[in-house]
This record gives sequence, structure tokens and C-alpha cells, in this order.
Amino acid sequence: MTGAPRLRTVDVDVQSPAPPVLPAVERRARIPAGFRAGGHSAGIKTSGRPDLALIVTSDGPAAAAAVFTPNAFAAAPVRRSRAVLAASGGWAGAVVSTSGSANAATGAAGDEDQARVGELVGAELGIGGNAVLHLSTGIIGTRLPLEKVAAGLAALVPMLAETDEGLEAAAVALRTTDSTTKVASVAVPLEDATGAVRAVRVTGIAKGVGMIHPNMATMLSVILTDASASPDVLRSILRPVAARTWNQLSVDGDTSTNDTVFLLASGAIPEAVVTAGSSSAAALADGVEAVARDLARQQAADGEGATCLLTCQVTGAADDADARAVARAIISSSLVKAAAHGKDPNWGRIAGAAGNARVADAAVLEAAGMSTEVARARAGTIAVVDPDRLRIAIAGHLVFDGRSGGPQAFDRASARADLDAPEIVIRLDLDLGAGYGEAFGCDLTEAYVRENSEYTT
Amino acid sequence: MTGAPRLRTVDVDVQSPAPPVLPAVERRARIPAGFRAGGHSAGIKTSGRPDLALIVTSDGPAAAAAVFTPNAFAAAPVRRSRAVLAASGGWAGAVVSTSGSANAATGAAGDEDQARVGELVGAELGIGGNAVLHLSTGIIGTRLPLEKVAAGLAALVPMLAETDEGLEAAAVALRTTDSTTKVASVAVPLEDATGAVRAVRVTGIAKGVGMIHPNMATMLSVILTDASASPDVLRSILRPVAARTWNQLSVDGDTSTNDTVFLLASGAIPEAVVTAGSSSAAALADGVEAVARDLARQQAADGEGATCLLTCQVTGAADDADARAVARAIISSSLVKAAAHGKDPNWGRIAGAAGNARVADAAVLEAAGMSTEVARARAGTIAVVDPDRLRIAIAGHLVFDGRSGGPQAFDRASARADLDAPEIVIRLDLDLGAGYGEAFGCDLTEAYVRENSEYTT
Repeated sequence: MTGAPRLRTVDVDVQSPAPPVLPAVERRARIPAGFRAGGHSAGIKTSGRPDLALIVTSDGPAAAAAVFTPNAFAAAPVRRSRAVLAASGGWAGAVVSTSGSANAATGAAGDEDQARVGELVGAELGIGGNAVLHLSTGIIGTRLPLEKVAAGLAALVPMLAETDEGLEAAAVALRTTDSTTKVASVAVPLEDATGAVRAVRVTGIAKGVGMIHPNMATMLSVILTDASASPDVLRSILRPVAARTWNQLSVDGDTSTNDTVFLLASGAIPEAVVTAGSSSAAALADGVEAVARDLARQQAADGEGATCLLTCQVTGAADDADARAVARAIISSSLVKAAAHGKDPNWGRIAGAAGNARVADAAVLEAAGMSTEVARARAGTIAVVDPDRLRIAIAGHLVFDGRSGGPQAFDRASARADLDAPEIVIRLDLDLGAGYGEAFGCDLTEAYVRENSEYTT
Repeated sequence: MTGAPRLRTVDVDVQSPAPPVLPAVERRARIPAGFRAGGHSAGIKTSGRPDLALIVTSDGPAAAAAVFTPNAFAAAPVRRSRAVLAASGGWAGAVVSTSGSANAATGAAGDEDQARVGELVGAELGIGGNAVLHLSTGIIGTRLPLEKVAAGLAALVPMLAETDEGLEAAAVALRTTDSTTKVASVAVPLEDATGAVRAVRVTGIAKGVGMIHPNMATMLSVILTDASASPDVLRSILRPVAARTWNQLSVDGDTSTNDTVFLLASGAIPEAVVTAGSSSAAALADGVEAVARDLARQQAADGEGATCLLTCQVTGAADDADARAVARAIISSSLVKAAAHGKDPNWGRIAGAAGNARVADAAVLEAAGMSTEVARARAGTIAVVDPDRLRIAIAGHLVFDGRSGGPQAFDRASARADLDAPEIVIRLDLDLGAGYGEAFGCDLTEAYVRENSEYTT
């Protein structure tokens, strides 16, 4: 009549991690050939910290792909970049980033300001404003200080360098409230036309803390490669990578107006030509995913007020989309996040969040145009978790096994100790199929609340 | 070149509230005729506080309707209540509530326990276990202490009273971490068959703090009326009411395994017969909505760690579903909630949340079976907010007007003072149609994080 579960000692796959097999990443700003970069303090931030970043191609435009925020309040830099890529068919000669003012919700005047930034960059570089892509981050509703940007660009352009230090400086200047500079790099061996293997470089820089959520919230990233690939190939690589990495990242459920990822290929190693559907394209995609995944993990770990990275890996789902939905539901749960902060192996909250992975979306389906009845019915029919098959492991401890009575006995003191770590891994095996997915978040802390209730408009 | 907005003094509708017109509610547990109720300390809670509630009909079964959690981990009381209503066609003679143990994720043994609770109640009342509806709330994964429940029922049944005090005692015994007892009552004038007006009573009791989110999260409610109505009529009333009230309530985005609302009609005023589609049905529906809305507001205000109620009212949406989606997005935003706690009129966060009202759901659509491409495309096409038409007022201060340059000058000190109130009202006019919707939440505080990181599994 008591709730004591049976003791059960097992060693199942749900207790050991199964991340995707991707190339190893080093966290250095190793600049790919064909790019110059730098950062500067232009005075946009009142703190005087670096706030202007520039990455330019050394020899003509680079092929470019992008993913942007879907927020209806997409900021001026997003709108401007979309226009540039649409007009060029996916080519660009520079990426400029201003940090401290988001240039969001600034109306037509903001759009004019952003176009003017492009003209200033284009004039400094002699490439014209229509070859310039834009990033911006900071406070919503304030205008860009164009004189400061102009003076900063004039100082920065002569300092641009085809060096790791230049790219590192650009990464530093992307930052807002980030406590770390986020860089990741891989070498990818590609076969050239003669069958010889050429190593190309894929390196990304990123910023992002707070407001990070699926669909690119207040996060900026630029990934560079010296491979040679068309804009179409880059687009076919970037979108699924973003779905598996940045769209599986959430710090607090909010999504920003400015989120942008650019992928640029300089073609500086012309022998390393990546064509659609080739093994080279697959290899390059793995390299881009390795960089994106590592940057997303760095961003989650640096979430506002966070003290640990919270990773959820889901196996055995009906398909990958299901697995990702469950993983996302768990790392987005405020109760799970607070339990992670308290080092509490609270499987009940995890089970509860998993049980809601889809059904909580009836409201969403309704909002998307379905009638209440249909949305409820549809949501009710697509639950992704079967409580009688689900297994849950927290930091390697099997805590729930639906096929064996549910709650499992485990060493609570040991689990608490294992949760006191820089990364907490929650694993679920749904036992329904072969789908895999992961998601990245962080714990919810008093510091998060403090920072965000005291932050001035 | 600065970001200073133009000064603009206007008195637009977005600054004055427009709640639905509903009967006035009093927060007293006025028991409708035909019910007896009571509460007792059965020892399920270690604190010794009341934890066993019982509501029974005085004269034969009542017509009953219910809405339940859509969580895949629906708890044993939910499963048992569903079975009872399915078998009876919507009739019940009692509602029993145990507080302290959720009887969730307890497997087949938990189902047997819950059925046994029904048998115990049915035997005490002489109505049989198949006439008993169930509520339970508390820790997930622990079994019900059946001996304590049995002893408690034996003590409670003789104390049941057809009095307001009896219903109040039941409301007290529903509570878990609630800091208040939640009751609401209205009198509804209905025409009887002779055209004479009869006043019927609609009274609800509820519990719920934390884990409250659209789709009924860790919230329990029982609404009683002495009108005479069929189960079909009650169902047709309860579902849309729940969509507009409880499904618009969020404390922290989590949804529980046990959420349940029951609506019971005793028929104790047999002249007040409510038939489908009649003006009486509309009047009764308004009464139920008034009670449900007030209970939802009490629950939001009592959210874990909350210091204020956060209300969002949206006018001018294309339809009501759009309006509700926008309102929900805003009161669910951690950044908006933290700003409310900081008494910060941060319209940028509100605009950002409104801009995501649908588009952040690409992941959801994808999880619901759409391909990534289709989900993204569809999500992108159904943004509900047009930044160039949107107006936002915070606590009566117009802070953003998309038709007039965006950010508006307002008296920041006065706004901050107005935000230091028990209820913060955010209003948006989308200027796109006639849709109206509202949502209820609360501020996000350090206390929320503390309570939920220190709560023991």
C-alpha cells in the first residue's frame, strides 16, 4: 500500500548517451581562407565594449545562405538582409554587425538607417551597399547611431585581417550580455575532382543569451567556409542543420526579432567544389552541423542566469520530429529547469513535460485556424509518449520504466551528486521507433529573474 | 538621429479595458440546492491540513460534464472519471477529491487504488462506485494511502452539509500549495416554462497554483448548479467556456497530469429546465463563464511565487482564436513576466511576444506531422500581428502605435507607479478585425524559482 517502487538494477541504453556522430570541434576562431574580419568599439554600447563587427570576402562575393527569425516584428537588419539575398540570388561580400541597438520596431526610419549602414560599409570596401548582409542586436525600439557607426567603420576597415585574431575580434564584438565569446571550428576532408582529399575549414562565431528559443531567438551566428559551393547547396545544408540545432535550443521560451544565421562559402579553395547530392555535400553538412551544434550548446550553457547546460536526448521515437518535440518540451519546462537548478532528480516533472509534448499544442492548432473541437481532437490523437513504454534516465540513473511498474528505485544521493555538474543529461527512450532528437537548455535560476526584472527598457 | 519617439497624447480604446459582459461574481461558496459538501483532514498530507473533499447530490444523480488534461500521463483519477462518465452517459452522484498524492504515473496499481476509492465512497453513500467522479492532486508517483482515505470518508460523510460552510470546507480541502481558497458564485435568472423568472445558482470551487497552463494544468475545479440540464447541454456549455478561461491561464507553461473541471447540475429547481439552444442555455453559459473566469483569475493571481495578476486583453484580431493566441503568447513570455515583476513598462518584450504568437509554432506544426519546409512556410504565412497596425497599452499608457511611428512617448514614472498594483493589464489592438480574447498569468519572481528548485521530489 506504500508508494515504494521495486528495486531494479539495469544497464540499459537509456542511461548512456547517443549523440549524433559528427566531426570533432575545437573552440578556436580558425578563419577559413578567403575572409578578413575584425571588431571595434564604435560607441554604440554605452559600456565602451566592442560593438561593431565586420567580416568581408577577400576576393569577390561569397555564396551565402541564411535563416532568419519568423517573428512578425522582424527587425530592420533582417528585412535588409532578406532583400540583399533575394536581389543577388544568394551572394554577398560582407557581413556587418552592430551590437547595443537592435534596430527593431523602428519602422521605416529604421529600415532607412539599416540601408545607410550597408552603403557606408559598401563605400568603405568599394563593393556597394547591395553586397552587404546585416546583423544587429540590443535594445528594441532605439535607432542606430549612424555617425558612430560611420566613424567606427572607417577605423575598422583598415584593421581587418585574414587571421584567427581578426575573426576572434569579430566574435567578441557580436556579444551583448554574453559572458563568453562563442566560436567553433572543424576541418572537413573533401575529395576534389581528381579524387585527392582537400581539407576545408568550417568556422562559426555566435552570440546569444536569454530569449533563446526554437526558431532563432536573439541569437546571431555566422558560419564561414573556404569550400566552393553554390547558394543552393548552402541553403540545402543550412536549413536542416538549423532545425536540428538552433531550433532545439531554448533558454526561456521567447523568440527575438533579430535572430539570424548566415553561412558563407568563399570558394578560396576552388578545387574543393561541393555539388548537390555529392558525398562532399554530406561531409560539408556534417561539418556545418558540428559547428552549429557546438555553438548552440555554448549558447544554452550561457543562458541568462544559467549555472548548467541542460541536455535532453530522446531515442525510440516514431520519427525524428517526434523525438525533437519531446526533447524540446522537456528542456523548455520551467519546472524541469528549476529542478535542474535544485539538483533534484524529479522524474515526475520530466514525465509530465513529455506527456505534453504535443497535446499542449491544441491551443496552437486552434490558433493556426482549426476549430477548437478539431484542434482538441487532433491534439489528443497525436500524443508521442506511451507511459507504459517510456523509460527515463537522469544523469545516467534509470528513474522511470513504464514497462516495469513505472517509478524505479535509484540512489538519490548519488543522483543528486551527479546532477551537480556543468551539464545535466536527461535521456528518454520512447520504445516506439527509431527516431532520435536532442535539445539544449539551461537551468532556471533566481539570477535569471533578477536580471530580467531589473533590466531597463 | 536619436531614438526619441514623438510625443503623442491620445485617448484610444486600447487604453480602456473591454472584458466580456458577464454576470457579477461574488467570492462566496454559496451552495446550489441539491448538493451536500464537506472537507476533512484524512492524513494524506503530512501537514495535517484538510485533504479530503466530498460533494454529493441530495436526491439522485446529477447531470455532469467534464474537461480533462490532454497529458499523455493522465493520472488515475482522470482515467477513472472518464470511464465513469462514459458508462453513465454523463451522470454522477458524488465527486471525491484527495489532495497530497496525485496518483499519477502509478500504473495499473494506481488505477486499482482509484477504483477502490470510488467503491469506498459509493459504499458510504449507498450509491455504488460507478457513480463517483474523482479528483486528485499532489506529488506524482506516490500511491494513495487507502486506509487513511477509508477512515477519512467514514468520518466525513456524516458531516456533509447542504450549507455554504460545507462547500467552503470542500474548497479548503482541494488546496495544495494554494495560498487562498478559491470560490466564485453567481445568480442566474432563467425563465421557466410558464415564462416566470427563476433564479438559479452557479457556484464553483477550484484549486491551482504552479504548473498552470492552457489545457488544464494542475488545476481542479467543480462547478455546481441547481438548474436542470442534460449532460449534452452541460458539455456544450463547458467546452467553449474552458477554451476562453482556463485554457487562457498560464503560470509557468507546464501542464499537469491531473487537471479536471466538472460541471454538475442537480436539477433541484426542476422548473428551471435548460434546453439546448434556448435563451436559458445562453444565460446559464454566461453564469458558468463568469464563475470560470473569476476562478481562473484567482488561480493566476495565486501562481507560485506571484506578486501580481497579469492580464492581457486583445481586440481587433482577425478572429477570437487569433486574439486568444496573442494574449496567451504575451502572458506566457518569461521576459514579459519578469518585466511585470520589475514594474518595467517594457513594450519591446510585449511586441516581441506578440510577433511570435504563431510563428514560433513552426516547430509545433512540424511535430504535428508537417515536414520542416511546410511547417516553416505555413507558420510564416499566418503571423497574426501586423507591426504597422498594432497598438499596445500598458496599465492604460499607450506605449506603441504602429500606425504612428511605433514607440510612443509616455510618462515612464507614472507608468511604473501604475504597474505597482495587484493586477497589471496589457492591452493590444491589432486593428485587423473584430476578434477579442484575453489571457491570465502572473509575474515571474525569484520566489517561483526558489520554491520549485527546493521542492522535494
